[in-house]
Amino acid sequence: MTDGDTADTDSGGDEPDASPIVTRADVEDARRRLDDVVHRTPLDTSRTFAEMSGADSLGLKLEQLQRTGSFKIRGAYNAMARLSPAEREAGVIAASAGNHAQGVALAGDLLGIEATIVVPEVTPAAKIAATRGYGATVLVEGDIYERSYEHVVERAEETGETFVHPFDDPAVIAGQGTVGLELLEQYPAMDAVLVSIGGGGLISGVGTAVAAADRDVRVVGVQPEGAAHAGPSLEAGEVRALDGVDTVAEGIADTRLSETTLAVASEVVDEVVTVSDREIAAAVALLAEREKAVAEGAGAAPLAAALSDRLDLSDSNPAVVVSGGNANLTDHAELARTGLFELGRYAEARLALTGWPARVGDVIEAVTAEGAELDALERARRAGTDHPNRTPVTIGIEGRDADHLDTVLTAVAEIDGVSVVERTVGDGI
Amino acid sequence: MTDGDTADTDSGGDEPDASPIVTRADVEDARRRLDDVVHRTPLDTSRTFAEMSGADSLGLKLEQLQRTGSFKIRGAYNAMARLSPAEREAGVIAASAGNHAQGVALAGDLLGIEATIVVPEVTPAAKIAATRGYGATVLVEGDIYERSYEHVVERAEETGETFVHPFDDPAVIAGQGTVGLELLEQYPAMDAVLVSIGGGGLISGVGTAVAAADRDVRVVGVQPEGAAHAGPSLEAGEVRALDGVDTVAEGIADTRLSETTLAVASEVVDEVVTVSDREIAAAVALLAEREKAVAEGAGAAPLAAALSDRLDLSDSNPAVVVSGGNANLTDHAELARTGLFELGRYAEARLALTGWPARVGDVIEAVTAEGAELDALERARRAGTDHPNRTPVTIGIEGRDADHLDTVLTAVAEIDGVSVVERTVGDGI
Repeated sequence: MTDGDTADTDSGGDEPDASPIVTRADVEDARRRLDDVVHRTPLDTSRTFAEMSGADSLGLKLEQLQRTGSFKIRGAYNAMARLSPAEREAGVIAASAGNHAQGVALAGDLLGIEATIVVPEVTPAAKIAATRGYGATVLVEGDIYERSYEHVVERAEETGETFVHPFDDPAVIAGQGTVGLELLEQYPAMDAVLVSIGGGGLISGVGTAVAAADRDVRVVGVQPEGAAHAGPSLEAGEVRALDGVDTVAEGIADTRLSETTLAVASEVVDEVVTVSDREIAAAVALLAEREKAVAEGAGAAPLAAALSDRLDLSDSNPAVVVSGGNANLTDHAELARTGLFELGRYAEARLALTGWPARVGDVIEAVTAEGAELDALERARRAGTDHPNRTPVTIGIEGRDADHLDTVLTAVAEIDGVSVVERTVGDGI
Repeated sequence: MTDGDTADTDSGGDEPDASPIVTRADVEDARRRLDDVVHRTPLDTSRTFAEMSGADSLGLKLEQLQRTGSFKIRGAYNAMARLSPAEREAGVIAASAGNHAQGVALAGDLLGIEATIVVPEVTPAAKIAATRGYGATVLVEGDIYERSYEHVVERAEETGETFVHPFDDPAVIAGQGTVGLELLEQYPAMDAVLVSIGGGGLISGVGTAVAAADRDVRVVGVQPEGAAHAGPSLEAGEVRALDGVDTVAEGIADTRLSETTLAVASEVVDEVVTVSDREIAAAVALLAEREKAVAEGAGAAPLAAALSDRLDLSDSNPAVVVSGGNANLTDHAELARTGLFELGRYAEARLALTGWPARVGDVIEAVTAEGAELDALERARRAGTDHPNRTPVTIGIEGRDADHLDTVLTAVAEIDGVSVVERTVGDGI
């Protein structure tokens, strides 16, 4: 417990509170402001994930259980609570298709500040409904996020509304940093913390909070391969922007840090690792299966890093921040199934049957006899030109591991009148 | 907080601790035994579910976060920790295809007692692997659970192993009752508790714990329509067994109470309500979407009851016990999608297209323009005889609510060259 300590530390930057942009005191102020507003989300230690990652212990900070389903309410509320009466009167505006939108909307509702959220045209209606549900006005402007953002900047100049940036704001960063203060208390053994990076707000805040602690905590940033700008930026000491992004972790699909988050992150982040979308999918599946938690891709990325070979966590006690869980259920289900595949526990196979439909019964029996789950079975339109006179059937199977699936598919292939034309099994990462 | 109180109560039965089979003191003993062994799982109050159910507040007891993924470890450990040195030496045996198996297996591992679990042939390999993972020996015997059970009873007589029954055992009931003690502390406003009933162990324990509290707590049992034996049994005052069961909530797909649970439940249960599998599916979807929680059907049933019109929860503060989350991910995904359908938020439609594939682009555009998610799109083999010269395509859409889906499908039907042959939308329960 370091709560209430002043900021005299030897970790993080070269000097105590080396970043003057956000200080530990700012984060502690934010915490007092957020005290009755946000949940102190649970920290769950997971033996399974500790073993899988080679760590001594591993703590999961469950921000998907936060109000609005992600940590974003912390920063948005902290920034908006500091507005003057005149600023509150004028209202706030933000551009976001995701978690920040809901954070600003709920903060507006709680503080009695009118909030307008501008979303791009592609935003799913469900997310618009959720944001409106918190009492915000939602405007659809721009074909992509960047256009919405430009619209907001222009409009704010005209209307006098305060623009609440998702990360380029010391007050937002300080709010996100309260996750770090809670971690210091909830997980005394913590000597490392893994945090996903989109624009860098969360890691800047958490890094600031733990850098000022009385113990060394290694701060590791995690980015998807398809939006990996933070590592190069921190190495170069200047913001390096990507032309585009391509990742399933839409919550951190940003093209760049801001000058503010670059400056703070330079002081408090020890290293940045990248994870593939396949690894993220596997982490989503494992969080659902082992932790019974619905996490979005951005929320699962740090666990993916912990389980990868890019981080040596032996003899350490990392905290993994599960930053959010806002995903359409159908998307989550699809991602989890992909994750099972990546874990080597799901197989798809194209079969060619000489006897339709009788042989289908034999296939079902073979799969079931081996103790696997038949998740899908479909008579396809065409299953390859090798067997033009046979009936094409595709199956999806959930099993224990890659060896088990191999056993099952071998048993299927041995059925008289059944050929396995093609099989796809994950590698078992 | 009533912890440490003696059992002098005016709620529940007609007299204090009317059931001599299990007492509040037994539950408190169990708690001391379980103290360092099981998680004190979180109690999360949900504004959303309180509003939806008409309650003042609603607390979710999250036993899917318990070790082994369900509450069953509580009872199994409590029963096994009370065995004599000689009994421990002889080992234990249980019959279960599910959560009880994992509870007994982990308890055996923790107590150094050899555990043998007999499972029926239909048990998925993944569950066998999980049980073996805790160090138990798993034997596959019998085509259905009843045969495995008979095998266990016979074998126990021969080997001298102690049979750990999933519910017909006061020590097991007392262990499950610790959920109730935690609820009394974690949710001071609680004046009702909703608990699913399979064999009746959990509700007997929880009911005993809260009946001895210094406040009135209404104890409500919940059963699936397809396995609804507890209401008739309690009414008749004798065990009424079903010939068979048919429910998606396999964790509570029992055919009967035992004499023990009937006796305890008669004293502590105020009423029993039933829920349909459709309602259970909707509750599974809502727990995933709003609570970011993976619950199995049995775990979601009490929430389904809270949201149904069979319970009047106005002016009350119910606790809903989410008893477990052990489900195959593919099964959970399917159930959640079914739940979205029941909530009126998922639609399937069979289309007939005059222009394949060009019209497909128009369909996608119409769905997206209305802000809905296109979850599935498939060129089907045949979509009905009304349009033999058109191309059959089926689509699956996730939307905001039934009205929204109606708007989307109307827009699709208005496309030139596209007919909606059939549409299936849930009622929006």
